Amino acid sequence: MAYPEGLVDLIDSLHQQGVNEAVICPGSRNAPIMLALVRHGGFQCYSIADERSAGFFGLGRALKTNKPVIICCTSGSAGLNFAPAVVEAFFQEVPLIVLTADRPAEWIGQWDGQTIYQENLFGKHVKHAESFKPFQPNQLVEKSMAFPQGPVHMNVPIAEPFYPTLGETLPQIREPQALNVQQTPKFDTNFDVDPDVSLLITVGQRQFNQAENDLFAQLAQKGIPVIGDATANLPVECQLHHDLIWAHEANLPTYKPEFHIHFGKSFVSKRIKQFLRTYKPTASWLVHPNPIGKPDPFQCLTRVVQAETIAVLESLCQQTLRGVSAVNSAKNRVEAIQEAYFNKTIWSELAIYNRLIGDIDAANSEVHVANSLAIRYINWTANTFTQSEVFSNRGTSGIDGCLSTAIGASQQTNKLVFSLIGDVAFQYDRNALWNSYVGPNVRIIIFNNAGGGIFGILDGAKDLPELGEFMVTQQTFRAKNTALDAGLDYFEAHNWNELNQQIQPFLAPSDRAKILEIFTDSTTNNQELQAYMNLFKQ
Amino acid sequence: MAYPEGLVDLIDSLHQQGVNEAVICPGSRNAPIMLALVRHGGFQCYSIADERSAGFFGLGRALKTNKPVIICCTSGSAGLNFAPAVVEAFFQEVPLIVLTADRPAEWIGQWDGQTIYQENLFGKHVKHAESFKPFQPNQLVEKSMAFPQGPVHMNVPIAEPFYPTLGETLPQIREPQALNVQQTPKFDTNFDVDPDVSLLITVGQRQFNQAENDLFAQLAQKGIPVIGDATANLPVECQLHHDLIWAHEANLPTYKPEFHIHFGKSFVSKRIKQFLRTYKPTASWLVHPNPIGKPDPFQCLTRVVQAETIAVLESLCQQTLRGVSAVNSAKNRVEAIQEAYFNKTIWSELAIYNRLIGDIDAANSEVHVANSLAIRYINWTANTFTQSEVFSNRGTSGIDGCLSTAIGASQQTNKLVFSLIGDVAFQYDRNALWNSYVGPNVRIIIFNNAGGGIFGILDGAKDLPELGEFMVTQQTFRAKNTALDAGLDYFEAHNWNELNQQIQPFLAPSDRAKILEIFTDSTTNNQELQAYMNLFKQ
Repeated sequence: MAYPEGLVDLIDSLHQQGVNEAVICPGSRNAPIMLALVRHGGFQCYSIADERSAGFFGLGRALKTNKPVIICCTSGSAGLNFAPAVVEAFFQEVPLIVLTADRPAEWIGQWDGQTIYQENLFGKHVKHAESFKPFQPNQLVEKSMAFPQGPVHMNVPIAEPFYPTLGETLPQIREPQALNVQQTPKFDTNFDVDPDVSLLITVGQRQFNQAENDLFAQLAQKGIPVIGDATANLPVECQLHHDLIWAHEANLPTYKPEFHIHFGKSFVSKRIKQFLRTYKPTASWLVHPNPIGKPDPFQCLTRVVQAETIAVLESLCQQTLRGVSAVNSAKNRVEAIQEAYFNKTIWSELAIYNRLIGDIDAANSEVHVANSLAIRYINWTANTFTQSEVFSNRGTSGIDGCLSTAIGASQQTNKLVFSLIGDVAFQYDRNALWNSYVGPNVRIIIFNNAGGGIFGILDGAKDLPELGEFMVTQQTFRAKNTALDAGLDYFEAHNWNELNQQIQPFLAPSDRAKILEIFTDSTTNNQELQAYMNLFKQ
Repeated sequence: MAYPEGLVDLIDSLHQQGVNEAVICPGSRNAPIMLALVRHGGFQCYSIADERSAGFFGLGRALKTNKPVIICCTSGSAGLNFAPAVVEAFFQEVPLIVLTADRPAEWIGQWDGQTIYQENLFGKHVKHAESFKPFQPNQLVEKSMAFPQGPVHMNVPIAEPFYPTLGETLPQIREPQALNVQQTPKFDTNFDVDPDVSLLITVGQRQFNQAENDLFAQLAQKGIPVIGDATANLPVECQLHHDLIWAHEANLPTYKPEFHIHFGKSFVSKRIKQFLRTYKPTASWLVHPNPIGKPDPFQCLTRVVQAETIAVLESLCQQTLRGVSAVNSAKNRVEAIQEAYFNKTIWSELAIYNRLIGDIDAANSEVHVANSLAIRYINWTANTFTQSEVFSNRGTSGIDGCLSTAIGASQQTNKLVFSLIGDVAFQYDRNALWNSYVGPNVRIIIFNNAGGGIFGILDGAKDLPELGEFMVTQQTFRAKNTALDAGLDYFEAHNWNELNQQIQPFLAPSDRAKILEIFTDSTTNNQELQAYMNLFKQ
C-alpha cells in the first residue's frame, strides 16, 4: 500500500473534534490528504486553485461557523500563498487548520522540485505548529480553538508513491485516538466600576451576538456611550456616529472619560485612537478571554480583564454607572448636519454609500466591507447597518483577500452576501471568482474611482507630486470582463439615474451572482468628503 | 522635518553599490521609501499594485541584470505577498533586496492597523535580514550578491507623520557611508578526473553564458555526454533529448557512468534523477561556488567542488576524458523516432509545442516557460531552443509568478519575450498584466486544456475518481477577457488551420503585447504524449 500511514486517522480525529469543512488546493503531493478528506464523507470539501484566495475563502467559512476550517495545499511555494490569510486569521482570531504536504525531511535542501523549508513556515503568525507523525495525537483543534482562537499549522511529509493503485481503498481508520480536552482559561470575576467616574465604552471588531447586544443596548439606554465602528456590530441604540462627534476638536476635552472599557478586537477609527492616546482616562480596561501580550491600541491600558464579554456586560448592567454625558448630547447635532448634507444629490462615493446602506441593510443580508476606504465610509454615513452583520479583514487590514473571504462566507446560507469593495481591492483579489462556488446569493458592489481613493484624502499624501504614479494604484481595469469570465451578471452606474434604474434588478433574486460597478470621480469624492468632514469640525 | 532620518542615505548607499531598479507597491507607510527612490534620480522605478506579482516582476528584472533589484511595500500583509517570489529567488539564487515599511517597534502587537510581526518575515528563505538603523552601514548588497546569490530583507520602521510637507524637499544625503567590500570565497583548484572512468555531465538550471557554452560544446565534441533540460541553456552540440534516451529502460545499465559531474542548479527531468539514484556512479561532483549545505538531488554526491563553472570547464577541456558511449549512440535512434512522429498532424500540445519552438526560436527572442507541464514538454519535442535563452521558475517550481517574472524580464530590451504557459498558471498570475509595463515585445502563448493537464499523465493520479474535482483545476476562464482589460491583442487557435493563419500576425511587430491562446483537448493530449513516450521505451 503506497498510501501514507496514519493519514486517514489524522483526518478522522479532526472530524471527531468537530471539523467538517476543508478547502483543498489542487496538487499532487497533497493528493493523499485530499483523498482522506473527500473519502471520509464527513467533510464539505471545496476545490480552489489560487492558494491566496483559497486561504481567505477558508477564513470566510470559519468566520461563519466558529469552527476550524482546514486549508490544504501541496508542497513548495503553495503554502506561502496561504500566508496572508493565515496572518489575517491570527490577528482577527479566527480558527484555521493549515495542512501543507511536504517532501520527506531527507529531501529538504536537496534541490528537489517544490521543496522549501516548510517547518514553521508561518513563524509567529500561527498559534501552534507541528509535523505530522502517524498515529500520534495532535493539538490542532485544541490550539486553534483555545483563546485567542487562531490558525495552526501541520506540515505533512509524504513519500512517493502516494497514490493508491487503481481500485485500492484507503486504509481502515484504527481505533479512535484519545482526544485532547480543551482547557478553559481561568476567568476574572470582579468587574466593579467606581460609580462616580465617567465611563466610555469602545467596542472593536466583533461578531454579531444578540445576547451581548441586548446588554450593550441597556448600557446605552442608561446613558453610557458605547461606541464602535460598523465592524463592532453594535445594536442601533449604540450608534452614535462617533467618528463625526469626535471630529469637533473644540469639544474633545469634554469627551474625556475617567474610565474606559474596550471590548472586541481592533478599532478602525483613528480619531478615537488618537483621542484616547491624548486624553488618557485614569483607568482603561481591555476585556478579552486570553489576549497575546497586552495589546494597547489606545496607549492607556491599566488592566486586562481576562473574561468573556457577556460576563462583564452582565455585571456592568447591574452596577450604578455614569457615562460621559457630552458624547450623548453631541449626537443630535451630528444627525442634524448629516440630514442636511444627504439631502444634496452630488454623485460622490459618500452619498452613494449612504444611499446603498439604506438599500441593502436587512436581516437577510450580511456585508463584507473591504479595506481600506470602504470600511471608513460606513463610519461616516447617516445610514448605518442595523440589521446586516458586518465583516471586514481588520486583523491585518490588507486588501489581499477581501472578496475571497466574502465568497467563503457566502456558502451554505440563503442570506444575500454583499461585498462592498474598491476597484483596487477587487482587481487584486479577482481570483476570488475563479472557482465554482460563487453562488446566486453573492452581490458585489465595486466602487471604481480608477485607483486607490484613500490616498487622495490623507493629509500630506495628497499634496505629493509622486502621488499619482507611485502611491496610488492608477488602474483602468473594469470588472465587466471578469464578470464575463466568471459568468456573473454585470450592472454599472455612472450617475443617480443609472443607479436608480439598476439597483432593483441588481438586488432581485437570481440564479447568478451579480456585480454592480459604480464609477465616480476621485476628485469629486475627495472634495465632497472633505466638505462633509468640515461640517463637523466646528 | 517629518521625513525619517537616514532613509535617503540608505537608498543612496544601495545606488552607490550598483542597485538601480526598484519595484514599488503603492501604500502609505512606505511612502518615504518611495520618495527616496523616485527623487534620488538614479533608479528606474516601477509601480505595481499586487505585491505577489510585483515580487516576481522584480525577480524577472534581477534575472536579466544580475544585480539586486529592490522590491518595496507597505506594512502588514503586503510583505507576505512577496514571499512566493522571495523563496523562488532564494532557491534560484537570484539577488533581491526586500524593503518592508513597518510600524515603529513599540506598535507591534498593539492591535494597530496593518501591524504584523515583520522582523524575520521570510524565515530561512532570505540570506540575510536586518532592521533599518539610520546612518548605519548595511549588508544588503554584499549579502545578496555573495554566493549563493539570493534575497535579503530589511524591515524599515517608520513613525508618523511621514510625508514631507507641501514643497518641502527631502534631507540632503550625508557624506557617503563606508561600503562593505564583498568577500571572494576561496575556490578549489584541483579538478583532475581519472582518464579511465566513463564520464556523464549533467547541467541544471543556468543562465546562458557563451564562454561556458563554448567549453560545454568542446566536451560534447570529445564524446562526453553533456545533458541538461532546456533551462540549462546548453549549446546545440549538447542537445541529446536525454529524457527520451533514458526512457529506454532496457538500456539503462549501459548508461551508467563511473563518474558524474553536475553544473548549474536544479534539474527538471525526473527520469535522470531517478536513474542516478539507482545506478549510482562511483564518484559524483557538484560544482558550485558556495552552496548552502550539500544539495544532493541525485543522491550520489561524493564531492562539492567549490568553484565557478568556467574554471572547472577549462580544466576538463584540457584533460583526457572518456564519455559514457552508449548515450551518444542512442541519439540517432531517438531522433529517427521523433522525425517519424512529428510528421503526423494530430492537434495535441506535444505537436503544437514542437511546431511553435521552431517558429519562435531566434537570437532575438527569449522564452519564459511556466511550471509545470510547459517546462516538461520542451524536454520532449524534436525542435529545441538553440538560440533563445530559456528561463523558468524552477527554484520552487511554483505556478504563482511565471507570467509576472516574464513581464519583469521584458523591460528594457527589444527582444521578443515569450511566455509559454498553461491556462491554470496564466489565470493564477493574471495580475501580471495589471500594470502599465506590459510592452509591445511581450508574446504570451497560453496552452488552454481547461485545467491542470499534468495530472492526467501522472501514473496513479490519472486513475483516481477524485481527479476531476479535487486534483485538477478544472477551469473555464479564457484569456480573452483579461486581454480586453489589459489592452492586449488576442489571438486564438483551435486547430492547425487557425494556428497557421494566426502565427505570423501574432509574431509580427506591433505596438501592443499579444496573447495567443491555443485550445486543445486534454484527453487527446495525454493519449498522444503517452503514445509518443512509448515509442522510446522499447
